[in-house]
Amino acid sequence: MRILTVDLGDRAYPIYIGTDLIGDAELYRRHIGGRQVMVVSNETVAPLYLDRVLHALGGGYRVETVILPDGEQYKTLEVLNRIYDALLGARFDRRCTLVALGGGVIGDMTGFAAASYQRGVNFIQVPTTLLSQVDSSVGGKTGVNHPLGKNMIGAFHQPLAVLADTGSLDTLPDRELSAGLAEVIKYGLINDAEFFAWLEANMDALVARDRDALAYAIERSCTDKARVVAADEKEAGQRALLNLGHTFGHAIETGMGYGAWLHGEGVGAGMCMAADLSHRMGWIGVDDLARTNALVARAGLPTTPPAELGGDRFLDLMAVDKKVLDGQLRLVLMKGMCQAVVTADFDADKLRETVGG
Amino acid sequence: MRILTVDLGDRAYPIYIGTDLIGDAELYRRHIGGRQVMVVSNETVAPLYLDRVLHALGGGYRVETVILPDGEQYKTLEVLNRIYDALLGARFDRRCTLVALGGGVIGDMTGFAAASYQRGVNFIQVPTTLLSQVDSSVGGKTGVNHPLGKNMIGAFHQPLAVLADTGSLDTLPDRELSAGLAEVIKYGLINDAEFFAWLEANMDALVARDRDALAYAIERSCTDKARVVAADEKEAGQRALLNLGHTFGHAIETGMGYGAWLHGEGVGAGMCMAADLSHRMGWIGVDDLARTNALVARAGLPTTPPAELGGDRFLDLMAVDKKVLDGQLRLVLMKGMCQAVVTADFDADKLRETVGG
Repeated sequence: MRILTVDLGDRAYPIYIGTDLIGDAELYRRHIGGRQVMVVSNETVAPLYLDRVLHALGGGYRVETVILPDGEQYKTLEVLNRIYDALLGARFDRRCTLVALGGGVIGDMTGFAAASYQRGVNFIQVPTTLLSQVDSSVGGKTGVNHPLGKNMIGAFHQPLAVLADTGSLDTLPDRELSAGLAEVIKYGLINDAEFFAWLEANMDALVARDRDALAYAIERSCTDKARVVAADEKEAGQRALLNLGHTFGHAIETGMGYGAWLHGEGVGAGMCMAADLSHRMGWIGVDDLARTNALVARAGLPTTPPAELGGDRFLDLMAVDKKVLDGQLRLVLMKGMCQAVVTADFDADKLRETVGG
Repeated sequence: MRILTVDLGDRAYPIYIGTDLIGDAELYRRHIGGRQVMVVSNETVAPLYLDRVLHALGGGYRVETVILPDGEQYKTLEVLNRIYDALLGARFDRRCTLVALGGGVIGDMTGFAAASYQRGVNFIQVPTTLLSQVDSSVGGKTGVNHPLGKNMIGAFHQPLAVLADTGSLDTLPDRELSAGLAEVIKYGLINDAEFFAWLEANMDALVARDRDALAYAIERSCTDKARVVAADEKEAGQRALLNLGHTFGHAIETGMGYGAWLHGEGVGAGMCMAADLSHRMGWIGVDDLARTNALVARAGLPTTPPAELGGDRFLDLMAVDKKVLDGQLRLVLMKGMCQAVVTADFDADKLRETVGG
């Protein structure tokens, strides 16, 4: 088992990476303070792993569960309310702990429920997808979607601990493995050229679920992300780099209807669009663009937006992005390969060429 | 104009108390950072004061408004969503500022919308009721109700400033003036015997809306509260004293259906119940109980719970209180007149006598 620490002062927490962590009673005991535990999972993950969690929590805790429907389209205020219903129905108090067992949607919703229930209770992340292990379980961003924009309602709320069990990737559908690889590639593109080269050399092993390759990719991604988050917890500056590909990707997700494209698929195409615009601005070479597109494609991800969205609608959807400040759209682009920047200094006509139409 | 400061380090903020503050353009300009302003009000307050706010914000800002229905029964996730709708519909970004124009319900909901929109934006409180001026606009508690419990969903989120315009009390219905006086009396009972005696001497003037008396009561209440909040922002300990009367009162509000009893009416009866139980425990004298009941009654408030609720249901409703820890109910009671404590050390049989049945 590897242990990373996200260094956030009195909110610092460990990320455990290894096999058989989901059922490790000692890890839960180390972090849970009170006696009340609410496990939040979904209809896909619960049949696979809930029993192991409940077994690990056996004895000493009062454990309740709430099982939500599976999918980004259920990451809403309405479904969030089911967690509050369960907590209040069980009369859980401020010392209760929530356990998020599932992918990014479960983690984000459980985290926001923990941030807002009685104005804040503790929670533990048990991410079961590659995407949530490398990304959404690290950094404390929690929230739900709104019909007009992704993750528009939420809070910063750090977990007590993250248990990233690499064994859970065995049951992950191919499409979701690819979606997770999008976020892995992202860390290379932001500012880790060495990791990007490693991914070019090892993408076939990752897609074939080589355990060592996956464990290394998870650890390196979490390390890269933890460093950025520790430097800028509330996204005043540098942290926005983690949104490389996301402004484009969110527009695709929102425009196509939540759940049609996976988040990672949107990010995959979005990173290629960011590289495309960076190339049009003359900031990266045509070979850099080609390397980006090739690696994203080898991960099993789309490299272009859905044609049916159209340029006007795409720009419209991008305008609600959280990085917009006083009406000015800012994007994460590359000035040099694997050197991402947040900038409003791009040509609007070239952006239009990138989004199509 | 008097100015108090709530001392919370880098989240410190001023409370302005005086007349004609609602339309004071300079005060808004001093605190609003970006160019986007969303004024949130309700159907009762907006016709009275919205124009003055809009006039003060004229020029330089892009101002939008959202008008909610008036009443505690609308302090829900569903109605909160209308604020998000308005913000996203207007494409407001992270630098926007929300202005809460109204009573405690508007303040709590606007504050929670500000806490959670894009994971946190700024807001300014413009409380227009006595209750919100002395209580809910100070301290950063925000949130909405759930059918199973009051204020169960929320966040701690401090405003940039509070503009308490005493002129707005001229239009306040008698019943709401009384509700506000409940919170004023509360500060005396918690730990300010001198203020309690002042209230006994001046209650008739307050009920008659004497301006000087009201201004003094607001300033003293805010000072008392700001001191407690500064010492314990997240309610780890001492801050819970501010809930004197509230566990009983919330049970009444929830049990009767939100909106049937005003919050302050519940607190009024709740303080008398807390005094009753304190007396039954032998912690205050019969004369102290009589003084409490008399002052609450003179403020125009109920001193006993509604008979139809019944003892069993009452205890049931109290069990979801946020001060419950690991299943143990804690109450704010008095050990000595005007000396409140948080304690689980009361006799369950005596509590049953207090709640009736």
